[in-house]
Amino acid sequence: MAAEVSSEGDLIATYLAPLARRVPGALGLKDDCALLVAPPGTDLIVTTDAVASGVHFFPSDAPGDVAWKALAVNVSDLVAKGAVPFAYQMALSFPEAPQRDWMAAFAAGLDAAQTAFGLGLTGGDTDKRPGPLTITITAFGHVPKGRMVLRSGARPGDHLFVSGTLGDSALGLLLRQSPHLAHNWQLNAVEADHLAQRYLRPQPRLALAPALRDFATAAMDLSDGLMKDLGRLCETSSIGAIVQAAALPLSPAARAALHHDPALLTAIVAGGDDYEIICAVPESAAAGFRAATEAAGVPVASLGIFSQARDVMLVGPDGRAIELGNSGWDHF
Amino acid sequence: MAAEVSSEGDLIATYLAPLARRVPGALGLKDDCALLVAPPGTDLIVTTDAVASGVHFFPSDAPGDVAWKALAVNVSDLVAKGAVPFAYQMALSFPEAPQRDWMAAFAAGLDAAQTAFGLGLTGGDTDKRPGPLTITITAFGHVPKGRMVLRSGARPGDHLFVSGTLGDSALGLLLRQSPHLAHNWQLNAVEADHLAQRYLRPQPRLALAPALRDFATAAMDLSDGLMKDLGRLCETSSIGAIVQAAALPLSPAARAALHHDPALLTAIVAGGDDYEIICAVPESAAAGFRAATEAAGVPVASLGIFSQARDVMLVGPDGRAIELGNSGWDHF
Repeated sequence: MAAEVSSEGDLIATYLAPLARRVPGALGLKDDCALLVAPPGTDLIVTTDAVASGVHFFPSDAPGDVAWKALAVNVSDLVAKGAVPFAYQMALSFPEAPQRDWMAAFAAGLDAAQTAFGLGLTGGDTDKRPGPLTITITAFGHVPKGRMVLRSGARPGDHLFVSGTLGDSALGLLLRQSPHLAHNWQLNAVEADHLAQRYLRPQPRLALAPALRDFATAAMDLSDGLMKDLGRLCETSSIGAIVQAAALPLSPAARAALHHDPALLTAIVAGGDDYEIICAVPESAAAGFRAATEAAGVPVASLGIFSQARDVMLVGPDGRAIELGNSGWDHF
Repeated sequence: MAAEVSSEGDLIATYLAPLARRVPGALGLKDDCALLVAPPGTDLIVTTDAVASGVHFFPSDAPGDVAWKALAVNVSDLVAKGAVPFAYQMALSFPEAPQRDWMAAFAAGLDAAQTAFGLGLTGGDTDKRPGPLTITITAFGHVPKGRMVLRSGARPGDHLFVSGTLGDSALGLLLRQSPHLAHNWQLNAVEADHLAQRYLRPQPRLALAPALRDFATAAMDLSDGLMKDLGRLCETSSIGAIVQAAALPLSPAARAALHHDPALLTAIVAGGDDYEIICAVPESAAAGFRAATEAAGVPVASLGIFSQARDVMLVGPDGRAIELGNSGWDHF
């Protein structure tokens, strides 16, 4: 049955209030404010990220995928700081009152995502206005007091680690825009689907948070591409880094694509949407970090080393710097 | 010099980071997350409200007025809960990269507003995408532990109070849309300007928070019109209310307008954007509440009484209910 959501009250009561049921401080979304209650002995940390139709996702994406991505990109930021996510505020902007079917699927996707990530809705805002459908989330996590992992703590000599594999999402986006590339890259269906899913459904590295707190001097998640985000971490830490191209962790699909089109290296290190985590770990802590990540079931790769010199370089197997030009996603 | 802000990094470093200078947990806006540190012995409360060009403000509004409104509407929600505002996250969505002049004036407006309201910027998100300029703020306040003033605590027999005057902003909006109304309503320049300013620059009732905590059983701010918002408070408290039309507090300008056009009563009680506070105060506490508000310098008026019967009625001097039809701002 195609029908529009009739009012803001209907939207909240029917679709959003159930998402708040496990958070007492949300007051059933019946108040203008919510209480944010972090466990005793923790610090509360906060992050904000918006996703918009036509910018961060395709208008044709399934509502459940849109919901997942909107929450995942925020949770990824919290996890990179060593935090445990527990609550979020959500502002929705619709160009037209949403269809009930769409809204039900979107809410179901949020429910699945918040269950997977361990948080609950505490409040927000909904409006109808021109422009693309936009979901702006402010998410909250807690870390043991004083243990937030910053961008600013990396030191020269620290090892640079990254979780998972790089570039899958950027390649998945290219495939989405030009499906014939699967043929050029000689991907089988499983490989093509892997890349597509990595773009559609980022998987925040929740299991990595304790290892980051225990061993990392600095960390951040990758949303705008390895080289750009690493540059930010280095700038905040007032150092540089040398990344070994040969050490870039690639999925079989990305490896196949890169084999058939070496120019994809730029997409892989600068394309964005990885939602993997980079971190700095002192030499003396590297073995402990590796053991902790293995116990947590999160693959990590050593990408290189942080340096006194403030350049961020990608170095090829011949020891020479690889020039990428001006790259990385800018929000403007 | 007309020039565009060149990148997200430029926007943050030049215009936004200075707004974070007084909040250590904001980490200079150089991290993906911020620390939210409320004083010991307090509860942390949170609210989210977005304002968009062409919906909540006019595209021609001065950037300083836009900034003020974006922050004020959030602060108003916190204050109504008895809270002290201290921090905010801000997501900006621009249809085009903003002009430096505009951005400087917007940042100066935010600076003035956050200084007036006592909070600092902790983080956020900026994007360029189609659609109107939108400012989505999530604001944080603290209340002494267990003392948040809810919507749900009002009881039959409690007095209904409201701060300030009603309808000025709705009339200011009508004037903005049809300037000739100032003539119809026989307003002098001071009166017309009063209404215009009430629309442009909502004044959150910061000084009222302690009196609300000490005496109110329920409270909320008025953003969507007295009758609609009072209906929400009554619904959450499972009661009703009887409002005396003769008791509606009006500014001289609103009184003059209503005198010349009695049909404006609907705009006054249902037009929205008042950003005044309604609250329920038990009979036994009414004198104490009045004394506290007087000491705080905030005018309040007794509007009527909460009732067992779940209707929300506006009653004329003849004791008869005044029918307003379906009114109040709906976000859809």
